[in-house]
Amino acid sequence: MLSKFRFLQISATFSSPKQKASFPQIVKFTAKFRPKMSSVSYSTSSGSSSKLLFRQLFEKESCTYTYLLADASHPDKPALLVDPVDKTVDRDLSLVKELGLKLIYAINTHVHADHVTGTGLLKSKVPGVKSVISKASNAKADLFVEPGDKISFGDLFLEVFVTPGHTQGCVTYVTGDGPNQPQPRMAFTGDALLIRGCGRTDFQGGSSEQLYKSVHSQIFTLPKDTFVYPAHDYKGFSVSTVEEEMLYNPRLTKDEETFKNIMSNLNLSYPKMIDVAVPANMVCGLQDIESKAS
Amino acid sequence: MLSKFRFLQISATFSSPKQKASFPQIVKFTAKFRPKMSSVSYSTSSGSSSKLLFRQLFEKESCTYTYLLADASHPDKPALLVDPVDKTVDRDLSLVKELGLKLIYAINTHVHADHVTGTGLLKSKVPGVKSVISKASNAKADLFVEPGDKISFGDLFLEVFVTPGHTQGCVTYVTGDGPNQPQPRMAFTGDALLIRGCGRTDFQGGSSEQLYKSVHSQIFTLPKDTFVYPAHDYKGFSVSTVEEEMLYNPRLTKDEETFKNIMSNLNLSYPKMIDVAVPANMVCGLQDIESKAS
Repeated sequence: MLSKFRFLQISATFSSPKQKASFPQIVKFTAKFRPKMSSVSYSTSSGSSSKLLFRQLFEKESCTYTYLLADASHPDKPALLVDPVDKTVDRDLSLVKELGLKLIYAINTHVHADHVTGTGLLKSKVPGVKSVISKASNAKADLFVEPGDKISFGDLFLEVFVTPGHTQGCVTYVTGDGPNQPQPRMAFTGDALLIRGCGRTDFQGGSSEQLYKSVHSQIFTLPKDTFVYPAHDYKGFSVSTVEEEMLYNPRLTKDEETFKNIMSNLNLSYPKMIDVAVPANMVCGLQDIESKAS
Repeated sequence: MLSKFRFLQISATFSSPKQKASFPQIVKFTAKFRPKMSSVSYSTSSGSSSKLLFRQLFEKESCTYTYLLADASHPDKPALLVDPVDKTVDRDLSLVKELGLKLIYAINTHVHADHVTGTGLLKSKVPGVKSVISKASNAKADLFVEPGDKISFGDLFLEVFVTPGHTQGCVTYVTGDGPNQPQPRMAFTGDALLIRGCGRTDFQGGSSEQLYKSVHSQIFTLPKDTFVYPAHDYKGFSVSTVEEEMLYNPRLTKDEETFKNIMSNLNLSYPKMIDVAVPANMVCGLQDIESKAS
């Protein structure tokens, strides 16, 4: 059973909103010290809460979704990108600029094998942007997250849930459950849980047993109306919910043994991008300027 | 100046929620008889209001967006699809079934030239579904809408705004501005307004002059935070807002003469699907069983 919360804390004094937004706001809590969140149902919403600015962006070649989130109510409009792709960095930055956002984080759910991450390029084009990935990925980045960490942007935050199995370092980022956080919650599941599917488990330390446990213990225990935003979709779906996947996911609704059998009999071809993408993605997508990209 | 409201009314007595949901609820009002809507700002939201179930679906070949909307609070969960594609009808119906919705309308923003509509197939697969298109399109359908008409599904409704110029029969469907309707509003603009672009105006009775007037008088006069959901996107954007397009649309921010010059110098190739798609789409996408599809 994976612990959702662990120890470490950051204390800082913020003297201005700008400082506050720029400060790397990854805060780590133990379960013991976790602040109590209000259980009041707060009726804002994904896509258009009074605070959250949200955009889903698609890269056609690898069918990758990149997500832009920002606190639109904060003076600086601090923003982050989840799973940016190298080929669409200019598109994403153009949008960030037009919307008047301040990009502070470029985050990956895992070391991707099917496309090159845009985090290194984003760092080179926007000074101050910090790359973020899980510590368990063993990849290079500015900041490493672990279970229970919170990534704040303005008054909003993402929580880190560890969901290994597709790769050893996969995490799911979930919007907070506190007051003023979007309701329903939104889970950025990477390749751990896809809409009516899941990522393969035959490379990069993958394990079907681990993936099954991850999804059932970390994602299927979220509120049922939590939106599921995956890293990919190949059929034109854009979003699902935890409830939908608990009811209709053709793999993860099965018992564990059946799931493992399904995953070991997929007969998928060798990932065509893996030999390029994985080494690049271990260093923020920029192999040739590794030192700058870390 | 296009009048947004015209005459005609439907009166009916509903004896049960089921009857209510199944009854073709296209109601036409004159400006004079238009019911007064509350101007109170109601804080529900697209994507996840307490009532609206919303899904954006993508067809990769023609880069077409299909939209599924349903009143999830109504006992029948009545639903409609905007701009369904023939190739993805089975995907869409599978989702409708899984979500427990009752599909009542299959709606087109216009007679498409780049893909075959799914309305005829949907009608053949789901008894009771009514196809809807603008009267000005001259296409066949069960129900024809005109400016100011309202298409109700449960307690939610879409309003019809006429936005010709890409084709002579283009309309934009906009979620209502009454109480309990999603806020911000959502505009399904078809090809009249694309994200940072617009549809071509050189076929099907197109007119750049008319398109310019349509967008400026009918779409850019909507509340600035209205979400713009187009029929297509080729760069991976999923949504914009009226404000964003008023600020950053590279064509429609120009003056009318410049816009007309841009549109007459696009040098686009002949639409590869037009000779198949347009004749098919004039009859709900089913040329060979025209009489059934109307």
